[in-house]
Amino acid sequence: MENSFDVIIIGGGIIGSSIAYQLSKMGRKVVILEKDRLACQASSAAAGMLAAQAEIEQDGPLFQMALKSRAMFPTLSSELFEYTGIDIELVNKGMLKIAETEEIASIVHKQVTFQRKWDPAITWLDKKELLELEPSLSPSISGAMFLPNDGHVQPANLSRAYAQAAAYFGTEIREYTEVVSINYENGQVKGVNTSHGVIHGEQVVVATGAWAAKLMRESGLEINVYPVKGECFSVRPEKPVINTTIFSDKRCYLVPKRNGEIYIGATMIEHTFDQTVTPRGIASLIERATQLVPELNEAPWERVWSGIRPQTGDGMPYIGEHPSWKGLYVAAGHFRNGILLGPITGKLVADLLAERLLDRTLLSAFHLERHEETVV
Amino acid sequence: MENSFDVIIIGGGIIGSSIAYQLSKMGRKVVILEKDRLACQASSAAAGMLAAQAEIEQDGPLFQMALKSRAMFPTLSSELFEYTGIDIELVNKGMLKIAETEEIASIVHKQVTFQRKWDPAITWLDKKELLELEPSLSPSISGAMFLPNDGHVQPANLSRAYAQAAAYFGTEIREYTEVVSINYENGQVKGVNTSHGVIHGEQVVVATGAWAAKLMRESGLEINVYPVKGECFSVRPEKPVINTTIFSDKRCYLVPKRNGEIYIGATMIEHTFDQTVTPRGIASLIERATQLVPELNEAPWERVWSGIRPQTGDGMPYIGEHPSWKGLYVAAGHFRNGILLGPITGKLVADLLAERLLDRTLLSAFHLERHEETVV
Amino acid sequence: MENSFDVIIIGGGIIGSSIAYQLSKMGRKVVILEKDRLACQASSAAAGMLAAQAEIEQDGPLFQMALKSRAMFPTLSSELFEYTGIDIELVNKGMLKIAETEEIASIVHKQVTFQRKWDPAITWLDKKELLELEPSLSPSISGAMFLPNDGHVQPANLSRAYAQAAAYFGTEIREYTEVVSINYENGQVKGVNTSHGVIHGEQVVVATGAWAAKLMRESGLEINVYPVKGECFSVRPEKPVINTTIFSDKRCYLVPKRNGEIYIGATMIEHTFDQTVTPRGIASLIERATQLVPELNEAPWERVWSGIRPQTGDGMPYIGEHPSWKGLYVAAGHFRNGILLGPITGKLVADLLAERLLDRTLLSAFHLERHEETVV
Amino acid sequence: MENSFDVIIIGGGIIGSSIAYQLSKMGRKVVILEKDRLACQASSAAAGMLAAQAEIEQDGPLFQMALKSRAMFPTLSSELFEYTGIDIELVNKGMLKIAETEEIASIVHKQVTFQRKWDPAITWLDKKELLELEPSLSPSISGAMFLPNDGHVQPANLSRAYAQAAAYFGTEIREYTEVVSINYENGQVKGVNTSHGVIHGEQVVVATGAWAAKLMRESGLEINVYPVKGECFSVRPEKPVINTTIFSDKRCYLVPKRNGEIYIGATMIEHTFDQTVTPRGIASLIERATQLVPELNEAPWERVWSGIRPQTGDGMPYIGEHPSWKGLYVAAGHFRNGILLGPITGKLVADLLAERLLDRTLLSAFHLERHEETVV
Repeated sequence: MENSFDVIIIGGGIIGSSIAYQLSKMGRKVVILEKDRLACQASSAAAGMLAAQAEIEQDGPLFQMALKSRAMFPTLSSELFEYTGIDIELVNKGMLKIAETEEIASIVHKQVTFQRKWDPAITWLDKKELLELEPSLSPSISGAMFLPNDGHVQPANLSRAYAQAAAYFGTEIREYTEVVSINYENGQVKGVNTSHGVIHGEQVVVATGAWAAKLMRESGLEINVYPVKGECFSVRPEKPVINTTIFSDKRCYLVPKRNGEIYIGATMIEHTFDQTVTPRGIASLIERATQLVPELNEAPWERVWSGIRPQTGDGMPYIGEHPSWKGLYVAAGHFRNGILLGPITGKLVADLLAERLLDRTLLSAFHLERHEETVV
Repeated sequence: MENSFDVIIIGGGIIGSSIAYQLSKMGRKVVILEKDRLACQASSAAAGMLAAQAEIEQDGPLFQMALKSRAMFPTLSSELFEYTGIDIELVNKGMLKIAETEEIASIVHKQVTFQRKWDPAITWLDKKELLELEPSLSPSISGAMFLPNDGHVQPANLSRAYAQAAAYFGTEIREYTEVVSINYENGQVKGVNTSHGVIHGEQVVVATGAWAAKLMRESGLEINVYPVKGECFSVRPEKPVINTTIFSDKRCYLVPKRNGEIYIGATMIEHTFDQTVTPRGIASLIERATQLVPELNEAPWERVWSGIRPQTGDGMPYIGEHPSWKGLYVAAGHFRNGILLGPITGKLVADLLAERLLDRTLLSAFHLERHEETVV
Repeated sequence: MENSFDVIIIGGGIIGSSIAYQLSKMGRKVVILEKDRLACQASSAAAGMLAAQAEIEQDGPLFQMALKSRAMFPTLSSELFEYTGIDIELVNKGMLKIAETEEIASIVHKQVTFQRKWDPAITWLDKKELLELEPSLSPSISGAMFLPNDGHVQPANLSRAYAQAAAYFGTEIREYTEVVSINYENGQVKGVNTSHGVIHGEQVVVATGAWAAKLMRESGLEINVYPVKGECFSVRPEKPVINTTIFSDKRCYLVPKRNGEIYIGATMIEHTFDQTVTPRGIASLIERATQLVPELNEAPWERVWSGIRPQTGDGMPYIGEHPSWKGLYVAAGHFRNGILLGPITGKLVADLLAERLLDRTLLSAFHLERHEETVV
Repeated sequence: MENSFDVIIIGGGIIGSSIAYQLSKMGRKVVILEKDRLACQASSAAAGMLAAQAEIEQDGPLFQMALKSRAMFPTLSSELFEYTGIDIELVNKGMLKIAETEEIASIVHKQVTFQRKWDPAITWLDKKELLELEPSLSPSISGAMFLPNDGHVQPANLSRAYAQAAAYFGTEIREYTEVVSINYENGQVKGVNTSHGVIHGEQVVVATGAWAAKLMRESGLEINVYPVKGECFSVRPEKPVINTTIFSDKRCYLVPKRNGEIYIGATMIEHTFDQTVTPRGIASLIERATQLVPELNEAPWERVWSGIRPQTGDGMPYIGEHPSWKGLYVAAGHFRNGILLGPITGKLVADLLAERLLDRTLLSAFHLERHEETVV
């Protein structure tokens, strides 16, 4: 078994697989080390919303990255299907950001003005227009921002397609392989020790989401990544209920997937790696979802699940090189935006490692040593 | 393939299998015809409570049958295990009938007096005694009737064990075999037409639960059996939460099963064969269950399911022979008591068919022609 | 509840839903009656191959229908997505009809000549060309016919999308509603009796697949439709294994689906409605599949399932009106081609009912009274 | 949250939970740290055979431990049910060790003589006697050793019952809590660092099965524990097929469980933590199982699964204290006998930690420093 690579990527989720894909397309010799199965954590549990403009409410590096990443999806969808036969199920039917009360409506109204700078197709819908578009919504809702270009994908398919496309270009995938420690000599990373022996390589990327802090701590660097559990459930109506993604004040979203399921998410339980779904979580989701769309009360139940999302102290991911261990990189902490930001993160990190990244301005906001400024 | 039998039983649920077991033990040549898989409907969906005295609140034929049937379980458990290796998971840790308010407490108190006639071990527990027995119960509960002899079994195992034990004594089991019509000549049943051809036999038992009315209608007899959907969910706590079965005012029960799951049931949706589980149903179960035992809010979610229970106009099962078609029998309509009443029903019907039933008093309340008196 | 319709469709599988869609688009008032859930039988169990030219080896009405139906898929895919948001996952990566030995190669070679009349893009690939296209195939294979235009869809999604699109145009969908008998007066159908009461309508379509013969028998017509169980399993490789659909001599096919699963099917067990999957069936599928693609031996196991396909005496579906009961129609018996033939069947039957079918030549081969000529 | 304990147990499988139960019954303050969910690895995947005499073929410490442990089950079963309501599903219907050929028969015959020293109820059954006991066995089998006292339990239930009973006596259970490193000062263990912070305690037990070597390596001790994957599948016949456990030459066993399933296991794939089930593994299990019991070919398929068992260089578990880190203990490497040996291991380790273990002879064979002598 080959044990020497140009780049070792720790973590087989959306971020790691996206980086591997970009690097192997450049001809780099890459290995992905995944302690369980590919995409077995947050990357599969996500709802897959590409909520660039519905979720991020102010300009800045994260917002700019989100816009850039969202723009990559149409091409990516064809490209990955070509290489792997996997369909990422890109849907561009738009998103509604619901204003449940008149009070929220005035806030959302301002958002419309702001977001239209970036996408003039965004509009405000009053109650009447809203019910014309989505007749199943509760008539008690005041209105909504309509974002026709915020869509969604099938997150597990996206992750798997990235990994298979990486494999197509030569990436080696090793599942059930846990990294125990990182090898380091004279200021330079030399490889990793795994549950299956040593692997050599002078570039190592830690892309282990909510589990990233532990491995970095061994290198003497504290990054403030912490877990936030999100519980979800889904129904599968036999008749069409909603067409667009419904997004309400970050506390509840409804995503109509291409197989006919509607995903309903998600709770936020901070500082736990515990993945159990609880009656409390499910009851709160049902309450919120049926306030938005009352007829979901009668929709056929499908399943429940949860995921552990990597939040950070200041809400921005960590992307960059270790300040003193040359060759050690982190790409983690994308919280609820891992699917949306996966493509651009893969591109930026690959360019960074290949020394092709001319403009590092965008990444400067995500550097690894900013923890001292953060307040959790 | 043999196509002539002494007795043809239509329906492979708990009732049909129990009858088949008793008849084949007597040496009769029996076939069970099941349109899908054995025990695939209410018999598997049940919680398996043997709530003889918690559920039935007044004396009468149903109550007497329930007491008799409950008394059969200990012996039955050993017997079925001996013949089949299947454990029906009989638990005799008792049941609590909860009085949530002072008002209900006074009603339940009277029940204690009544039920003690039949089982002097039954007692009233005030709030303090109750919390000593089950510390996880909500302190807002007023008290409870404690029925130390009402237990529970694993219903799917009970049904499968009955069927396998029947097979052990020679019963032929035919799954995926639907009965289309019943053959009849000169006042005497002659067999049935099935999706796999004709089967001959001069005794036919209709034991198809909520689906019984349709087949009987063809014989000119209207029996008032109708479907009532019950939705359930379960959790699997990692620490013990409750020991006894908790039974509250028929609207909610919690059954701690022998594999560590707690079953939480059940809604009641009348007049539907639709088996989908709905968010409305699940939300109402969570609300009720966590009012009784608040820490269930955090218990790990396991699964949801539903079943279609056969209710009747007057709440009593139909057990007996057709008034004019000789050889045609019904045993259906046990509603929420099919598991509890399965053993005695099997015994009574087998004795009836074998002309060994000396005292028919008990069965007279369940005869098939009482529909004209009922008001739904 | 409304109980009078223009057209009553019995059966909520691919055939019934496709007919309902076409009729409701024409403005007819339609109801679908399904005894369980929509698409719960063969329509969900199918692999979804659109094997117009790989499976049908000679010209004739079935072949012509297959070509016409296949041509409908691209437009249909967009149309259904538009109305329902469901993606039928149409893949057009081609199909390989494998010639495992030199002997079979000479037969397949002749097929190439024949099929090229209808699609000049079809070619013969010798061993070397074949392994270039699909390097995972066993080197012992002699060659293959490559059909670049035979693809596949996700069958459950296709069925659900048809039903939802029908609902969008006003079709009423009633699940868990079983038809007991058909009402008929003076040579004219008048409606049906169901488990939920009478429904009126002067056009009734029986689209119940392998279960169609029973209902027709009551109208005095014997149609020779019988059940053939097909067992399947699937794997989900983490690296791409095959791109095209692999089809070998009708005994085994491998279909790489858009979610990364590879479906492997299917056994053929005649004259049974029993849907259990058996070790014998699974062992035979593994053996055949790994002879074709040896590395499937190590692919991660996903799941097993089965379906009951409606075969007929002469291998052709029954589509047409009852000879004496006016208003009673059948569309059943599509065997392994229900997904492929669903679109054209829907169109033809809708036109037939609406009296818009100008040319009935194509349907004449499928008329309902041809049973006397068939030998099973 | 309390963070100081008498004993910290790493690993929530059968071994860790059994130790916790014994220690907390003695009044020690115990915490179980489990990186995922309790019993989520080999402890749930096991078939649960208590094959003390069928599997171990010569006298010695392992054999003596196995006999002692098996003898604990009847009492344990009542005890755990009393404290937790969970039934470990102990079955004592005996085991058959099959001799497939005449050649193997002569070897098994000698085993009968040897094993009868420990249990005079053990007998040799020739072909005729064997088929009388188990008529479904293949008539090509030469004979079998019958061990009437080797039974089985439900392994997941046993593990959960141990953990819940430990919790009943005060053990704290922390799931989703990974131990990163062990704290050590001046020759004495001081606690552990976890993904949720530091936990203090002067006795730490490593009970992490196949994952034990890694954690011990950090303490400077190499123990030769390595993973062996075992794949299994199950069927659920509707009629009784076998009553006893069938055990053939270690390559295949059939265990009829108390819920009616028959477990069929297990492959042995060394040196992998990869838990995927493969077509190769399933095909080999089907082949072996149907050679023993041909009618399993037609039994209804239920499910597949796998587990990672902890094998050691010399086939014996590691149980004992670290040679230089005072307070650090290991109990791991029980391979296919973890369920059988769980009770005695729990008792011995608890006594060892509590300094109540008077006779250490038995444990001396399992000490931690024997790796230098082993050849893998």
